[in-house]
Amino acid sequence: MSSRERIGAWIESDPVQRVIISLIALNAMTLGLQTSPALVADFGGALHLIDQAVLAVFVVEILLKLYARGARFFASGWNLFDFTVVAIALVPASGPLAVLRALRVLRVLRLISMAPRLRFVVEALLKALPGISSIALLMLILFYVFAVMATGLFGERFPEWFGGLGASMYTLFQVMTLESWSMGIVRPVMAAYPLAWLFFIPFILIATFTMLNLFIGIIVDTMQTLHDAQHQGTRDELERSMHRDNAQLEHELQALRVEVRALREALRR
Amino acid sequence: MSSRERIGAWIESDPVQRVIISLIALNAMTLGLQTSPALVADFGGALHLIDQAVLAVFVVEILLKLYARGARFFASGWNLFDFTVVAIALVPASGPLAVLRALRVLRVLRLISMAPRLRFVVEALLKALPGISSIALLMLILFYVFAVMATGLFGERFPEWFGGLGASMYTLFQVMTLESWSMGIVRPVMAAYPLAWLFFIPFILIATFTMLNLFIGIIVDTMQTLHDAQHQGTRDELERSMHRDNAQLEHELQALRVEVRALREALRR
Amino acid sequence: MSSRERIGAWIESDPVQRVIISLIALNAMTLGLQTSPALVADFGGALHLIDQAVLAVFVVEILLKLYARGARFFASGWNLFDFTVVAIALVPASGPLAVLRALRVLRVLRLISMAPRLRFVVEALLKALPGISSIALLMLILFYVFAVMATGLFGERFPEWFGGLGASMYTLFQVMTLESWSMGIVRPVMAAYPLAWLFFIPFILIATFTMLNLFIGIIVDTMQTLHDAQHQGTRDELERSMHRDNAQLEHELQALRVEVRALREALRR
Amino acid sequence: MSSRERIGAWIESDPVQRVIISLIALNAMTLGLQTSPALVADFGGALHLIDQAVLAVFVVEILLKLYARGARFFASGWNLFDFTVVAIALVPASGPLAVLRALRVLRVLRLISMAPRLRFVVEALLKALPGISSIALLMLILFYVFAVMATGLFGERFPEWFGGLGASMYTLFQVMTLESWSMGIVRPVMAAYPLAWLFFIPFILIATFTMLNLFIGIIVDTMQTLHDAQHQGTRDELERSMHRDNAQLEHELQALRVEVRALREALRR
Repeated sequence: MSSRERIGAWIESDPVQRVIISLIALNAMTLGLQTSPALVADFGGALHLIDQAVLAVFVVEILLKLYARGARFFASGWNLFDFTVVAIALVPASGPLAVLRALRVLRVLRLISMAPRLRFVVEALLKALPGISSIALLMLILFYVFAVMATGLFGERFPEWFGGLGASMYTLFQVMTLESWSMGIVRPVMAAYPLAWLFFIPFILIATFTMLNLFIGIIVDTMQTLHDAQHQGTRDELERSMHRDNAQLEHELQALRVEVRALREALRR
Repeated sequence: MSSRERIGAWIESDPVQRVIISLIALNAMTLGLQTSPALVADFGGALHLIDQAVLAVFVVEILLKLYARGARFFASGWNLFDFTVVAIALVPASGPLAVLRALRVLRVLRLISMAPRLRFVVEALLKALPGISSIALLMLILFYVFAVMATGLFGERFPEWFGGLGASMYTLFQVMTLESWSMGIVRPVMAAYPLAWLFFIPFILIATFTMLNLFIGIIVDTMQTLHDAQHQGTRDELERSMHRDNAQLEHELQALRVEVRALREALRR
Repeated sequence: MSSRERIGAWIESDPVQRVIISLIALNAMTLGLQTSPALVADFGGALHLIDQAVLAVFVVEILLKLYARGARFFASGWNLFDFTVVAIALVPASGPLAVLRALRVLRVLRLISMAPRLRFVVEALLKALPGISSIALLMLILFYVFAVMATGLFGERFPEWFGGLGASMYTLFQVMTLESWSMGIVRPVMAAYPLAWLFFIPFILIATFTMLNLFIGIIVDTMQTLHDAQHQGTRDELERSMHRDNAQLEHELQALRVEVRALREALRR
Repeated sequence: MSSRERIGAWIESDPVQRVIISLIALNAMTLGLQTSPALVADFGGALHLIDQAVLAVFVVEILLKLYARGARFFASGWNLFDFTVVAIALVPASGPLAVLRALRVLRVLRLISMAPRLRFVVEALLKALPGISSIALLMLILFYVFAVMATGLFGERFPEWFGGLGASMYTLFQVMTLESWSMGIVRPVMAAYPLAWLFFIPFILIATFTMLNLFIGIIVDTMQTLHDAQHQGTRDELERSMHRDNAQLEHELQALRVEVRALREALRR
């Protein structure tokens, strides 16, 4: 066992993993406490220290894993995820990148990559994605087409909502979620263009019907996978049981045949 | 039959149960009537008297059950529930505990613990909970992470919505229910931070997709349980029918064997 | 065939039914046109005349059915429905009953009772109701309990929303549909009672989770009914096929037995 | 192979199709860019030129297909769709038809008719429509009846929402989507007519329950189709396996019979 292998086994051993999970939970807490200006004024130094210490442990952990695995480290999506959320914390968060400070909390998501049960749930969620890619692409095209139309039709009079392609897509997304679609958007638009409902009602019907089918698609897919396995199981058990019964009958028939043959032998003599 | 057992049997006998259910219903009515200041002004005394009398009966009922069952009384979640909602009414509701007065009406929920059909429904609902615990934990982590981020990003400018961790979680819950998410929250935030949609749109997509999968998970779980039972039933019936058929064939084979043996006997003579 | 039977058969014959359906559609149109003051000013007399004429035909139709069927007429829910919506139109709609004028349009719903396909859909919808009665009763108890609590807790400060039991139930229904629950109701309430979210968030979670399960209950019920039939069908076909095969084997075995017996007879001679 | 056939084959060959798809994507981009006044000011000429050139290619493509197929061209819904969206662009969009300019972007939907995977998704969506036609018709009748009633009951006092049949149907659609139904519509109406909730709450319950059943209908339909196929498959495999087993038993029986017959021959000698 090379030193690489030994380090790889040690870093993934249960006690070390448990320590890391505790540190993530501790870090989650300090990051939460740091959102309170009052607490930062009193214990800001200590919180910062803990944060830095935990981060240091994470960096060492990932460096050790990198050393142990080499390039294969990046083959796992979860490792890549761990690497990214730790790396974000190391980028100096100042000037235009100040927003990265807020992303430090993404480290807490490492809880998901460390807990097998949560990993399983997330993997199940991600597995549902390819099945809906076609319908998502269709949705995207529909959104684009309706957004271009809305910009052309209503952009001049309602620049805040339909002033550009981005604004229109955002507004249409809001309309699709049915949030204030009528009182907030369509009624004011209809005051200027009385026939605007001819644009929005079909959009709502098409968009919600498509989303509904996306939803149904996932249900039906999941259940079909389950049923295929169940049917297969039922069939296999029945076949096994049938074969067992038939084997017995065959066995009896063969015994009978032996008997009849013996009878013939007896006659011949 | 000890006196304990006799009391236990009596308190759970149908007539006594029916009286208790009627008293709960009566109490539900008086508690409802007590919400009307006009009625309280006129009949406040009588309503209070009924309330106290019913409460006294409940206390006696639970004391008798406690005497009859001893510590095993608390083994049933429903008994614990009955005990708690009655105990709430006995705590003096004054000063900082005045809110407990409003909780007296929880006694009406005893209707659920007394009616077997409603108990069954609630137990079915509770049985669905463990199956969604993983996804609920995932949701909680996501909420925490997004709340910390939102507080860091928008807290300073929008203290009412994102001023602290609690405020942010509440606002994100509102956004997840899609209530006024755009006109009420995100559009005002985008007026200050034009890229805020990069935070909220992914949050909405992730949160609703996860909720959707939680929902699908319950459907698929429920149906799988049903189907397993059905498949099992179908398979068992088919196997039984198969065995019956085979038993008949075997019977015929044995008869044939007897015949062949008789033939041999005949030959020997 | 008595005159009753002859009239009963005639009134339910296809041509008469088709005339009635056309008259309902015509009446739907005139009732729609009567909502326009401009049209009523110009053609009010004609529209009223058509309305009265159609109503007269409906009255005659139902009287004939009543004569043909006698008391059995009321055994069908659909007949009772037809009778009620026609009777509403005959009540003088003046004074406090002026609202009944607006209910005249319920007559158009006779389209549903006349078209078999629509009848089937409505009957399917109604058949789903008993399966959800338990959960609906549970919902009602929850609503009552939460409404009494809300009235006690928030009634004094927010009389418009929680001033009485009715107002509270209406507001909670609104909250359950998630309409403006936060920006419209809970945020203002939290301004007065900062802990109000401890009441509303659990209410929303419980109410939506219960509604979700009601929904899942209907899906699973519908599918189970379908599957039971399918499994039954699959099992029956397999059993039939199995019996056929076994019957053949048995037939062969019996033939063999006859042969062996014939052999013994031959030996005896 | 006639020249018609050769042109038909060429226009549907993979390379040509790929060029057309690229042109649609390019056109999608230019149409999107044309929504920006700044870009139109700078590159308006070039964008217009590309648009016209792409349109010219589409016209030629469709003319060639028309020549190759003749009247059969219109037998495919997708061809009809392509023809319509291209034709829209050729109508001079000025005066009252200026709105047609905004419809030019519908050309981008040709992406759907060109990509087999997207075509499949849309065809699946359309296939779900007939199954819901009965319930949609029911919905329409309900909407009409409730709209006539609402106009009669609330039209005078709330002309903006219930002033006519169209306004009422739009408002009821908004209420059905639960958008601002209470704070925006029903609470103001209740201020004038305190019993208005007797109209709106039943409408919401009926409308959402019907929509729910429409939704459940699609799920159950889709799954039943899948299951029928699965059950059929399971049954067929089991039957095949059963016949195989029985064939073997029969084979053994025949061997036994041969043996018995040989015995008889031996006896006869």
